[in-house]
Amino acid sequence: MNKRNQRSKHKQKQKNLSQRKPNSESSQIVEGRHAVREAILAGTRKVREVNMSEGLESGTVLEDIANLSKELRIPLRMHAKSKFKSMTTVESAQGVQAICDPLPDLEIEDLVEETENPFILVLDGITDPGNLGSIIRSGECAGATGILLPRHRSVRITPTVSKTAQGAIEHIPIATTGGIPKALTRLKELGVWTVGMDMAADEDIYDLRVVHDPLALVLGSEGRGLGRLTRERCDLIVKIPLSGITESLNVGAAAAIGCFEISRQRLTKVKR
Amino acid sequence: MNKRNQRSKHKQKQKNLSQRKPNSESSQIVEGRHAVREAILAGTRKVREVNMSEGLESGTVLEDIANLSKELRIPLRMHAKSKFKSMTTVESAQGVQAICDPLPDLEIEDLVEETENPFILVLDGITDPGNLGSIIRSGECAGATGILLPRHRSVRITPTVSKTAQGAIEHIPIATTGGIPKALTRLKELGVWTVGMDMAADEDIYDLRVVHDPLALVLGSEGRGLGRLTRERCDLIVKIPLSGITESLNVGAAAAIGCFEISRQRLTKVKR
Repeated sequence: MNKRNQRSKHKQKQKNLSQRKPNSESSQIVEGRHAVREAILAGTRKVREVNMSEGLESGTVLEDIANLSKELRIPLRMHAKSKFKSMTTVESAQGVQAICDPLPDLEIEDLVEETENPFILVLDGITDPGNLGSIIRSGECAGATGILLPRHRSVRITPTVSKTAQGAIEHIPIATTGGIPKALTRLKELGVWTVGMDMAADEDIYDLRVVHDPLALVLGSEGRGLGRLTRERCDLIVKIPLSGITESLNVGAAAAIGCFEISRQRLTKVKR
Repeated sequence: MNKRNQRSKHKQKQKNLSQRKPNSESSQIVEGRHAVREAILAGTRKVREVNMSEGLESGTVLEDIANLSKELRIPLRMHAKSKFKSMTTVESAQGVQAICDPLPDLEIEDLVEETENPFILVLDGITDPGNLGSIIRSGECAGATGILLPRHRSVRITPTVSKTAQGAIEHIPIATTGGIPKALTRLKELGVWTVGMDMAADEDIYDLRVVHDPLALVLGSEGRGLGRLTRERCDLIVKIPLSGITESLNVGAAAAIGCFEISRQRLTKVKR
């Protein structure tokens, strides 16, 4: 797969989408070296300014950020260490913060229309920002084409989420919806298979029959898993077969395994 | 697979191993509901006492802990909330703490001898306790038969590790070694294939030729990945093929995907 083409195709799509009204709750503050560099590199939204702490050991990523800011004429301001710390929100911003335009406010249809063979990750009520960021990162790495989050009962795209996602939020369209069960019905209308992940399923994810069609992988919240209504609306429920004694995986691990199993099956088809 | 048999087989093995001298650095403090329940249930080491906070909402796991303590005559002490908080070490002990015998001090040979088709997870220098706990949990769930950690340059089995592992540390033998490169040589002598995971590999983990033989999956530290010497000593290096723009997975996700890909390939063989 040519990542450069993919990137520019994605950029074009984001550009079209970003003409929509912005999601006022989306995060405009991006912190952490990788997250800031990707926000600038992706070009999916305008980066208004970059703030940096003084007295940092230089590093490749910081140098990239400084060079890119100069090239793209993004104002770069240096601040005393203590001042910088008072400006930032995450535990360690790694000395750099970007103030960006909000992420575009997308809807379900935006994740399906004009998308070749959609692979949507539906996250129903993840409450820990570190988990959400890491799941978005795993999904993007696995070639997921979109993320769907509930507008309520879930963490927003906070600076901790974007930092943990290491820039992945810039590269994958993220839509929100009023309620996940209703959204699953809408996805079915749009021709997308809805596949829930649950430890209590009969079928293994290893034999996913619909993997080569448009599909949405649905994950529940930490601890409680899929909600009853969400579970009932899914076309099928699959599990990751466990071979140990520990009863369950954490949601981040389950998401990573699920996304990459879909990626593996899709890649395997391409190869044949 | 019959988990009950597996559990009792593992218990027997741990019992034999626990006659070794204890690892003085292993954690004797276990906190968090799942971690404490598993410590008692597993029976791989003696639980000396259980401490509980007063004023907790009751729940299945807490009730299990109270009943098991009574049944096994483990002293259970109730403490005022503030007193309990001052006794515990993790951020939220979920109202329960167990004081246990140390984990047995195991060596490489203990992970290979008397183990049917070993599948060892070698973790070279994970520094975040949450990551280490979650990786041990994923490994145990995937049917890994042992964990190998460096004695230095790595986090120990702290209460945060055992809490995040949700009891998995009681169910999987954990050995330590002076240096990972030397340990890899020893593993080869013992007939175990050493497979490093690295994003820069040529081969995909999906085509792992040695999956049905004894093997060790080797993971590097957060951020830096496999060390040079470790990399050179591995029999082969494999990668998880990425389909997105984000450059890498976090180490917890990579470990989960790697372990379950081995599990999948091994299960697939059994089925055929």
